[in-house]
Amino acid sequence: MNSNQFIFRKLEESDYHKNYLQLLSQLTQVGHISPEEFSNILAKIQSQIWVFEDTTANKIVASASILLEQKFIHGGGIVAHLEDVIVDQSYRGNQLGHKLIVSIVEIAKNSGAYKIIADCKPELLSFYSKNGFEKRGEQIAIYFS
Amino acid sequence: MNSNQFIFRKLEESDYHKNYLQLLSQLTQVGHISPEEFSNILAKIQSQIWVFEDTTANKIVASASILLEQKFIHGGGIVAHLEDVIVDQSYRGNQLGHKLIVSIVEIAKNSGAYKIIADCKPELLSFYSKNGFEKRGEQIAIYFS
Repeated sequence: MNSNQFIFRKLEESDYHKNYLQLLSQLTQVGHISPEEFSNILAKIQSQIWVFEDTTANKIVASASILLEQKFIHGGGIVAHLEDVIVDQSYRGNQLGHKLIVSIVEIAKNSGAYKIIADCKPELLSFYSKNGFEKRGEQIAIYFS
Repeated sequence: MNSNQFIFRKLEESDYHKNYLQLLSQLTQVGHISPEEFSNILAKIQSQIWVFEDTTANKIVASASILLEQKFIHGGGIVAHLEDVIVDQSYRGNQLGHKLIVSIVEIAKNSGAYKIIADCKPELLSFYSKNGFEKRGEQIAIYFS
């Protein structure tokens, strides 16, 4: 692998054919989504979805989203939510995750957010702390389905 | 206090004059926001902000927001983010927080979300677990300012 092999850019509609959903399915269940459904969902998504493409393989190999949330607090501040961080299993161990997080944090900062927040499993705390994150609280949830 | 005293509804522009920002300042810093700025920020907010008004006092006494996030995962599912939950200090201990969470969870469910997630301080885990939430992970953050 060399550094020219990867480009960092926003998700595009044509990434349906570049293994994007197969990448996401390494994170959690995705289910079957047709090209038309993909396009309809993408149109509704308010988050920015950023990806690394391996241009030698024509394949999306890492992805993360940020959702910018306008608040009243902090003088009408913006919070960036980091979501759905995934690096393809066969591309791990070569700093792609690190580059992804560094890039996304920079984007959040430049968007004027006063903070970027995320939730992670306990075993990922050390990865995120190497990238500047600190533990702040507990993530809680109710699952409806 | 009687049950007719409180109405549950979405935040309105006129709530600027019903102590809404003073309520939020019990959560974290708000800073000075003029009526005009309030209106401009409200127009940009994509979250639903729900409030309890004490109609005998003309005052917003509890509030919570939900931000609905469209995803690709879970078959193009929606995640509801519960944010900025606050009950006025002088109104605590009368189940208003409980009613707020129950109402918001119902709204999230009816919006078609497959889950509702939130972050909280460790000392609030027992309050949220009484309202159906379970701890799922760790909340992490980077503060830019």
